[in-house]
Amino acid sequence: MGTITVAQYALVYNAFSFTIAVMGAATIFSFLNRSQVAPAYRTAMTLTGIVTLIAGYHYVRIFNSWEASFVVEAGVIRLSGIAFNDAYRYVDWLLTVPLLLIELILVMRLSRAETVSKSVRLGLLAALMVALGYPGEIATDHGTRWLFFALSMIPFSVIVYELFFGLRKSISSQPVEARGLISGACWLTIGSWSFYPVVFVLPMLGIDGATANVAVQVGYTIADIVSKAVLGVLIYLIAVRKSEADGAYVSGAMPTPARA
Amino acid sequence: MGTITVAQYALVYNAFSFTIAVMGAATIFSFLNRSQVAPAYRTAMTLTGIVTLIAGYHYVRIFNSWEASFVVEAGVIRLSGIAFNDAYRYVDWLLTVPLLLIELILVMRLSRAETVSKSVRLGLLAALMVALGYPGEIATDHGTRWLFFALSMIPFSVIVYELFFGLRKSISSQPVEARGLISGACWLTIGSWSFYPVVFVLPMLGIDGATANVAVQVGYTIADIVSKAVLGVLIYLIAVRKSEADGAYVSGAMPTPARA
Repeated sequence: MGTITVAQYALVYNAFSFTIAVMGAATIFSFLNRSQVAPAYRTAMTLTGIVTLIAGYHYVRIFNSWEASFVVEAGVIRLSGIAFNDAYRYVDWLLTVPLLLIELILVMRLSRAETVSKSVRLGLLAALMVALGYPGEIATDHGTRWLFFALSMIPFSVIVYELFFGLRKSISSQPVEARGLISGACWLTIGSWSFYPVVFVLPMLGIDGATANVAVQVGYTIADIVSKAVLGVLIYLIAVRKSEADGAYVSGAMPTPARA
Repeated sequence: MGTITVAQYALVYNAFSFTIAVMGAATIFSFLNRSQVAPAYRTAMTLTGIVTLIAGYHYVRIFNSWEASFVVEAGVIRLSGIAFNDAYRYVDWLLTVPLLLIELILVMRLSRAETVSKSVRLGLLAALMVALGYPGEIATDHGTRWLFFALSMIPFSVIVYELFFGLRKSISSQPVEARGLISGACWLTIGSWSFYPVVFVLPMLGIDGATANVAVQVGYTIADIVSKAVLGVLIYLIAVRKSEADGAYVSGAMPTPARA
């Protein structure tokens, strides 16, 4: 990457630190409020917290790698000679993106057969999508970058199609109180995921190398916050509405409605 | 070890970081979702989480040792002079491999006498297997390496025999819903364990020292993820199916179905 300005360096630096705080907060929220939902939805809450925990871990690594790759002294910035590690994001996505899809499937509480088949299919497609993106991300020429972008967009398109037609179709079988939120969670996922390929192509649009790098870092960071932490809050709200609709708390079917 | 390339260094580095995230995620999953299974299976869940926690701790140490043993600057890699510590893996296995076998025995919920005798016998054999492998791993000549490989393969073969004939024989006494998963867990253990001796002999097959070292690190890492974290998810699924089959949740036999 080229030399960025001190202001650009600080923007990315502060965005990474902000994200560590967001992911940590989202993790604690999911783990503590897991007891506020009916047992059927607790695995979804566990996975939501695990996703933000894994992301938080990687943002600590990303932050440290960013800090180590530049030297800022007396208002002047230069490269330190230690390369910024791009792989952390992809390693993170390889784990978190399949889990994100599974938490969305789990909170819908489909039949066991549907839950297993959808989780396996969408999970594998998500892992394939991330694995195909990486060779493009580290490529130095635009041709290779476009090639792996195109390959990665194939599983991406199948997943979006599944979310749109497969999962949203199941919405009619969901309790009325939760339908709007579930539809919202699907849309949020489609919307935030669409952001990643846009960020991916930024360096291929003739933008200056340093500026493109800053835009990529900030872009991926915003997309990660929305698709992981904001989605986590939606998953929690869905689980609360569905717990109420299931009558677990109202009918007294659950002997210990809110044990921590 | 010889000098590896920057790409080989980064591959191992990222594989170790990935494993820290996987083991951490698996640990939290086991500890939180322990409340989703009947009390009879909670000790198996506790051990599953402890195994991945111990592994996660050792991968932090292994990661730091790997980072400290090389210097990468301006795209050039050299040995730092600080030796990479091979012992962490063996110390880890000495603890985790007996525990892995015990968690598999516990989730089967055999009679108390069988549980104790199998746990003691398989646990001691596993510890012996690991202890015999270590002198081979650190040996600099192939003769010593082959000798301890052969010695270590004796307890290894007994364990695989026990898993195959002893534990799998008990499957017929398991609830129908869980049989496929239990058989899968035994096969996963046999399959992933068979990977270790293959990785162990790689440096003796005339492969270049640096490449062999990278293959050993990545190979052991994949085997650890499968035999510990993936097995943990299977143990959880078995425990859920068996809890349902036991009727704990249906009959109300369990007073607090979802205690966290």
